[in-house]
Amino acid sequence: MSDQPIYFDYAAATPLDEQVLIAMQPYFSGVFYNPSATYSAAGRARQALDESRSTVAHWLGARSSEIIFTAGGTEANNLAIHGIMRQFPDGNIVVSAIEHESVLVPAHNYDCREVAVQPDGRLDLEDLKRNIDDKTVLVSIMYANNEIGTVQPLRDIAKIITDSRKSRQPSAVSRPLYFHTDACQAANYLDLHVARLGVDLLTLNGGKIYGPKQSGALYVKAGTKLLPLIEGGGQERGLRSGTENVAAAVGLAAALAISQTSRHEEAARLQALQQQFFDAISDMPRAHVNGSLRKRLPNNVHLTLEDQDNERLLIQLDEVGILAAAGSACSASNEEPSHVLRALGLSDTAAQASLRFTMGRQTSSQDVQRLLTSLRQLMITK
Amino acid sequence: MSDQPIYFDYAAATPLDEQVLIAMQPYFSGVFYNPSATYSAAGRARQALDESRSTVAHWLGARSSEIIFTAGGTEANNLAIHGIMRQFPDGNIVVSAIEHESVLVPAHNYDCREVAVQPDGRLDLEDLKRNIDDKTVLVSIMYANNEIGTVQPLRDIAKIITDSRKSRQPSAVSRPLYFHTDACQAANYLDLHVARLGVDLLTLNGGKIYGPKQSGALYVKAGTKLLPLIEGGGQERGLRSGTENVAAAVGLAAALAISQTSRHEEAARLQALQQQFFDAISDMPRAHVNGSLRKRLPNNVHLTLEDQDNERLLIQLDEVGILAAAGSACSASNEEPSHVLRALGLSDTAAQASLRFTMGRQTSSQDVQRLLTSLRQLMITK
Repeated sequence: MSDQPIYFDYAAATPLDEQVLIAMQPYFSGVFYNPSATYSAAGRARQALDESRSTVAHWLGARSSEIIFTAGGTEANNLAIHGIMRQFPDGNIVVSAIEHESVLVPAHNYDCREVAVQPDGRLDLEDLKRNIDDKTVLVSIMYANNEIGTVQPLRDIAKIITDSRKSRQPSAVSRPLYFHTDACQAANYLDLHVARLGVDLLTLNGGKIYGPKQSGALYVKAGTKLLPLIEGGGQERGLRSGTENVAAAVGLAAALAISQTSRHEEAARLQALQQQFFDAISDMPRAHVNGSLRKRLPNNVHLTLEDQDNERLLIQLDEVGILAAAGSACSASNEEPSHVLRALGLSDTAAQASLRFTMGRQTSSQDVQRLLTSLRQLMITK
Repeated sequence: MSDQPIYFDYAAATPLDEQVLIAMQPYFSGVFYNPSATYSAAGRARQALDESRSTVAHWLGARSSEIIFTAGGTEANNLAIHGIMRQFPDGNIVVSAIEHESVLVPAHNYDCREVAVQPDGRLDLEDLKRNIDDKTVLVSIMYANNEIGTVQPLRDIAKIITDSRKSRQPSAVSRPLYFHTDACQAANYLDLHVARLGVDLLTLNGGKIYGPKQSGALYVKAGTKLLPLIEGGGQERGLRSGTENVAAAVGLAAALAISQTSRHEEAARLQALQQQFFDAISDMPRAHVNGSLRKRLPNNVHLTLEDQDNERLLIQLDEVGILAAAGSACSASNEEPSHVLRALGLSDTAAQASLRFTMGRQTSSQDVQRLLTSLRQLMITK
């Protein structure tokens, strides 16, 4: 076991990028002012907040006024769902069966319909069409899944939503139909241009893109009326009250800029490592990859190793300094088999033989090699 | 004008303490792990979170399981109010007329009664008794006011609440009656022992005690049932979902420990500066202090300078490097005269002639002297 553990859990958490911390530093004890204060020194805090907002807007192809800073991705997802749904007590919400808990749990406070996914994790578009009706006010489909890395066809989904909107009965025309996407896992590798994606609301999470934890943002298309979750002083256009966390906003913006600037290069590099992984898996007996191979985040490898017990493997990998996950760390307290794997049609037994490896900026080909070697040994010696 | 501005707005924001930043540093890019992950390295993040929770609990005389980390004081106040009130659609909430917006705005979603304050800002206890009835489920009274620094008699209030609880009609006995206090401004200078104060819920805010912005905690007495505001992975015992911000929790705990350890000494030091201020004011024509002189935070000086315009004074003070406020920065976007000053019985004209000076760790006697000299000059040359 080497001194430094090898980290294969970037979907659960990313280290804060050194450059991001440097960008945040001035706002801890130097320009610490409340951005709402009226003296000129506070203007520097306000300016940093404005610049961060416009940086985030830039990478989304949005306007600054369409960006709401939140304390994390979970909060942004909750704000999107409750913020829309509370306005329409007789409306319904349509989500995929493999959404993150921070979408699923708030959505189930309302009349919520779950759209099936195909065995490869891609949304069943026919089932989506069947589920949207004249009372649907929000469709929330994640951009890329946190467990299996599957990337959803947002543009195709947006097209279906636009068509549904157009074909509404005259009596339902006054009811809006919005499209929200949770892009927390996508932001490191995929295009985030909201107009190209066709979304009305989009969630970002700093903690998954080498930015600060509990930093986040919700894009809210101009004209979309939203109710706040957290009320008070009226910050963030009344949609997220509380003294602004300028350092976190600066960190989120810096992290997003770095991720988006380097995304093509980094995606290509990780795709090669992913291929190395897939090639090795194809030689392993009774091992197979879950989720679409093509429509997939480049950093995700999700395996079922038949007859293996994922908890035992994780403990043994940990012992040799390899850090991986059985599923989403976000609900680790939950002993239930993953709802994502169930939706793919995996049995509980198969789910309990499944492991998630997510790669990131520090992952090298040697790391993948070491993991594969360890995995083979552990599978034999079980 | 000196190079460094003199800061008299510690109630709006405090700089991050250097020791607090040092305590947080390991959790940015070293121990950045998701505390819910199962590998041993993540145990260090979990342990830091647990230790932070027990430090916060220690200073409140509470159990660790009674501390919920939130992303700031506003969120904690919202969680307390919505978390209780949403369970009792036919219940009512009783607040003081001088609560912070992060209490007032959520409270007014329900049947909300505002209790009057006396001209010195102290709660009218008879009016409190009149407002609590058999349908009251929550009383929320802030520990110390953010504008005028008035400290409320929490123990006396707790006694009234206990008596009300006991004298409930048999039909209302099943309905709870809780006492919440917003201690955001109090935490630097006052005792926070929840049993001594007699509260069921208490809000802390890192950003006001030299800790990180958007760090906070809600104390929730064991047995108090609360609904979450933000749902998802079930972190913080299901009451605040989202990957935990370990660095912020560590920072909040470190900041609270420093503030509470040094509070007697720091309060005595600031009280001397406050007295220096009050003595000078008593010599100024047409100047007087708002709020109780005795039951007051030691760092707060709130003045009405008759016939002066507070906006002009703030701009001119800013020009000579002195940073102060007209009221709460938390609602600076709001052009209305302060609801706090109105509740004291000040006219709108008097409110617009009022200034808040809040001192803190860097404030020296020389700073106060310089402020007084500048203020006298500006009042003459208007």
